[in-house]
Amino acid sequence: MNNFEYKNPTKIIFGKDSIEKLTNEIPKGAKVLLLYGGGSIKKNGIYDQVKKALSSIDTIEFGGIPANPEYDVLMKALKVIKDEKITYLLAVGGGSVIDGTKFLSAAALYDGDTPWDILKNNIRSTKGMPFGTVLTLPATGSEMNSGAVITRQETKEKLAMGGPGLFPVFSILDPQVITSIPQRQIANGLADAFTHVLEQYMTYPVGGLLQDRFAESILQTLIEVAPAVLKDPTDYQAASNFMWSCTMALNGLIQQGMPGDWAVHMMGHELTALFGIDHARTLAIITPSHYTYNFESKKEKLAQYAERVWGVTEGNLDDKAYAAIEKTEAFFKDLGIDTKLSDYTKDFEGTAEEIAKRFTNRGWKGLGERQALTPQDAEKIVKMAY
Amino acid sequence: MNNFEYKNPTKIIFGKDSIEKLTNEIPKGAKVLLLYGGGSIKKNGIYDQVKKALSSIDTIEFGGIPANPEYDVLMKALKVIKDEKITYLLAVGGGSVIDGTKFLSAAALYDGDTPWDILKNNIRSTKGMPFGTVLTLPATGSEMNSGAVITRQETKEKLAMGGPGLFPVFSILDPQVITSIPQRQIANGLADAFTHVLEQYMTYPVGGLLQDRFAESILQTLIEVAPAVLKDPTDYQAASNFMWSCTMALNGLIQQGMPGDWAVHMMGHELTALFGIDHARTLAIITPSHYTYNFESKKEKLAQYAERVWGVTEGNLDDKAYAAIEKTEAFFKDLGIDTKLSDYTKDFEGTAEEIAKRFTNRGWKGLGERQALTPQDAEKIVKMAY
Repeated sequence: MNNFEYKNPTKIIFGKDSIEKLTNEIPKGAKVLLLYGGGSIKKNGIYDQVKKALSSIDTIEFGGIPANPEYDVLMKALKVIKDEKITYLLAVGGGSVIDGTKFLSAAALYDGDTPWDILKNNIRSTKGMPFGTVLTLPATGSEMNSGAVITRQETKEKLAMGGPGLFPVFSILDPQVITSIPQRQIANGLADAFTHVLEQYMTYPVGGLLQDRFAESILQTLIEVAPAVLKDPTDYQAASNFMWSCTMALNGLIQQGMPGDWAVHMMGHELTALFGIDHARTLAIITPSHYTYNFESKKEKLAQYAERVWGVTEGNLDDKAYAAIEKTEAFFKDLGIDTKLSDYTKDFEGTAEEIAKRFTNRGWKGLGERQALTPQDAEKIVKMAY
Repeated sequence: MNNFEYKNPTKIIFGKDSIEKLTNEIPKGAKVLLLYGGGSIKKNGIYDQVKKALSSIDTIEFGGIPANPEYDVLMKALKVIKDEKITYLLAVGGGSVIDGTKFLSAAALYDGDTPWDILKNNIRSTKGMPFGTVLTLPATGSEMNSGAVITRQETKEKLAMGGPGLFPVFSILDPQVITSIPQRQIANGLADAFTHVLEQYMTYPVGGLLQDRFAESILQTLIEVAPAVLKDPTDYQAASNFMWSCTMALNGLIQQGMPGDWAVHMMGHELTALFGIDHARTLAIITPSHYTYNFESKKEKLAQYAERVWGVTEGNLDDKAYAAIEKTEAFFKDLGIDTKLSDYTKDFEGTAEEIAKRFTNRGWKGLGERQALTPQDAEKIVKMAY
């Protein structure tokens, strides 16, 4: 096990009818900016629950944060924060709204030339304007971590940021919100959380026995609840385990002491930036190719995953490892998610080369668990995913 | 899954040679009281590492906190805290020293008549003097939770306390400390952590699928590393997984949304108070009887545990559930821990009645996962453990 430092101060308020507890979490005298997305919260009743809980609190609203939170939109919200002397942010939404709020938390206290620096130079934020979240879509884990990914249309870039100052003060998780989520987004959430675990688990062994078992626990739970969540979102047992699994998949815990890979995300982000494909679907596209391309270095863990998570008992180590890749791809397909780039666009020729060029231009040293994958490796992996 | 609120702000600094990082964690200008136990840290080099890391910090020492931290000793430490205007506490030790430090953290800021009230009335502490820990003995999980158990010899009582103000600010976990721990204490640590998980897991089902799997992960890891840790404490892979498993067993995570039992602990505490038997050993004495006595209400989970943790595949549900109890008792024995009260004392007659009387006198409503066990039930369970 590698050395690690771990601290996660976010307060989780989990369960039925927990949105009303919002009232107790916002400090007295705060001036709140309520941030949300495309307005679905106004249709499904969440907006009303939030407004009721905030009735005695000075609140301004900023809606319209898009999926893949857009820098230019967020800069408008930042102007509101400054003009209105906002002191507290409240994100009501999924990963995009929460990620956007993290950027605003950092940008509101940033004293450099332009907040773009935070993204361009990946400046670690040790302080931020305090914020809470009301999660409306389980998927990204953003509600209990300190990272964010922000998109800039102008340059077709998707860049990561974060730091210990950007944990939500609190996050409210009411599994009942799942009843109002479209099937497509539930499927995306399942695939997203599943891949988050894989990025931290499908790495070279360092003797993190407990971490491996925790990762396998989340994967097993997601596999177990996926059919029930998709069939009947009012199934509270399935919904609550789905929601808590998504949070635990990316709150830092299973990563401690372990190498991370994240190459799937790096390549996937480019597919979203280039084609606007849903984040989770880009992960389903890249994952099988990435594990096939890196088979030799990952086969021990792939075989362990095949045995423990999928119950594969037959064959030698290589057979089990290959079965693991097949089972994973089949899982995505069972969710209704296609796993080839050509399923999403006819215009895929040249994509692999374009992504390799972008990686090269950014001066990146290497991707993956050993930072050893070159832009040329990425090119081959993406091509395998056509 | 039940509703829950979860926040654990303790910073964990885990790994080889991590004690030197202590320097960065104590705030500048703090006046520190360094608390420790019987002095073993002066023989195994940990004291020297701590003193070196504290060389530029104003520090006073208080040693001699006994196993089962004693109220009268702690009251002497409290006098030092007040006389010397201490602002920060540092526990260097195992669960007893850390628990004692938590009491002091609460008592230092308590403004009632006497700090005994905190224990007698189990007052929840929402604030405490800040403290950190350097863990020298993996077992209790006290390094990442906000609870403590304090003993008062005068009345032969062992009482619980805690509250959200009593999380350590930081805890340093260097698995290399295990090389200096006597075998007996390593075995105790394994049994203690194992039982902590069982108390939170062996309960009636509420659909906490992920929590069950996390609990099983810790049990499986402890079973896997126990022989290696006992055979060769310098086996870093085994030591590090042992240490992290003990912390995760009782840092609140696996408890969220689940009923807890803790009746084994309540009865076990009395055996320590009456006979001075090591805490972990009292748990090994009570556990098999408790599960046998409450077989009907626990058999579903016992059978699940038999299947998933011990790989039991034969027999019907009852068979598997009984096998689970046998496997658990055999695990304790493999650690070199006896599982009957008569293995520890010849003077056991009347113990069950005495414990039932104590429970009755304290006016307790009921023990266990449903608060349904009466003092008379406890009497029968303890008698089964003779």
